[in-house]
Amino acid sequence: MDKFRVLEIKKSVFENNDREANELRKELKQEKTFLLNLMSSPGSGKTTTLKATIAALKDEMRIGVMEADIDSDVDAHTIAETGAKVIQLHTGGMCHLDAGMTKQGLEGLGTENIDFAILENVGNLVCPAEFDTGAVKNAMILSVPEGHDKPLKYPLMFSICDVLLVNKIDVMPYFDFDLEACKRYVTKLNPNIKIIPISARTGEGIDEWSNWLREQVKQWNS
Amino acid sequence: MDKFRVLEIKKSVFENNDREANELRKELKQEKTFLLNLMSSPGSGKTTTLKATIAALKDEMRIGVMEADIDSDVDAHTIAETGAKVIQLHTGGMCHLDAGMTKQGLEGLGTENIDFAILENVGNLVCPAEFDTGAVKNAMILSVPEGHDKPLKYPLMFSICDVLLVNKIDVMPYFDFDLEACKRYVTKLNPNIKIIPISARTGEGIDEWSNWLREQVKQWNS
Repeated sequence: MDKFRVLEIKKSVFENNDREANELRKELKQEKTFLLNLMSSPGSGKTTTLKATIAALKDEMRIGVMEADIDSDVDAHTIAETGAKVIQLHTGGMCHLDAGMTKQGLEGLGTENIDFAILENVGNLVCPAEFDTGAVKNAMILSVPEGHDKPLKYPLMFSICDVLLVNKIDVMPYFDFDLEACKRYVTKLNPNIKIIPISARTGEGIDEWSNWLREQVKQWNS
Repeated sequence: MDKFRVLEIKKSVFENNDREANELRKELKQEKTFLLNLMSSPGSGKTTTLKATIAALKDEMRIGVMEADIDSDVDAHTIAETGAKVIQLHTGGMCHLDAGMTKQGLEGLGTENIDFAILENVGNLVCPAEFDTGAVKNAMILSVPEGHDKPLKYPLMFSICDVLLVNKIDVMPYFDFDLEACKRYVTKLNPNIKIIPISARTGEGIDEWSNWLREQVKQWNS
């Protein structure tokens, strides 16, 4: 038996995505389910970060993951190994998820026994930033090899996120990444953003990230 | 005086992008200008690769570069230092370029004295793959830190490119990147693609890449 379902989600029929997103948040509040929308470029380490996050929090809360991809089930297989509930969403070529698509995903996942749901969005720093998914909080990952100038080039994404994980800090010695410059660019766009340097591979910073998440989930579900 | 112009390009008014792209290629053929469309994720090293490419070829041909970005002029400043002709294109939030937008960029750049024009597309593995820009050849970069599984997750991009540069091979020892698996995934999607491992930083592989480009430019402009 397969460890997860694959769901083909369709482009939303709703004209007003913002309204649909607000409706979804109200439903999540009633169901006591916290939804995190996790975004980044391809290959910045979303899935590895999720694995470390699930390992840190799975004994305290019931976690469900939606893996959105244009194609392939690679990430759902990886997450299924953690024991978390997982569903693979195929976007049929779509470069982002909107609130209607996220709702289809949540219905496929089933939220009645989920305290903390995570949407791993399509790897893309442009389009996902333009669509409110209905998530309670937006998180993004920028990895060290991508360079510290990315906030200058993809400003909207950095502006709409509540938290930025700077991942792969274990390879910092091999790249010209200026963490202070990065923080400066990001906070200029978004003074309230929380910035947490991590290495999903070595586990560095995962405690701080888990503490932040624990606090958010507790607040939302109380 | 600024070293380059900044051009705000508008969404194309043409209904039929494929026809517009073919028209543009015909014009480029008449003008003896070879156009390369360079695509990748954010931070995979497009601009650094361009710098190395310009250094290798600038004494043999007249090179012009269009730097497409949602915002910022960071890359145009970098390319202007090489001495190549450069123009910054701002897409106004658009996540890709189509043939009409590329044509606006080429008109802004001026192709009458350009043998080899390069479009550095928006950093995005999804949307740019869906739009023929009118380029003669499509190239993409996958960098080692992004991981060898990307062809499985963004198959269209790997399917429509003529050449794949696997960049940042100098940091291969610090990442779990399986080059043979990557080649296997890519050639399954696209048996004719040429794959060249490079390090834009150290210069490794730039000779092979330059030789490939020289051959393409010569063939097109003859």
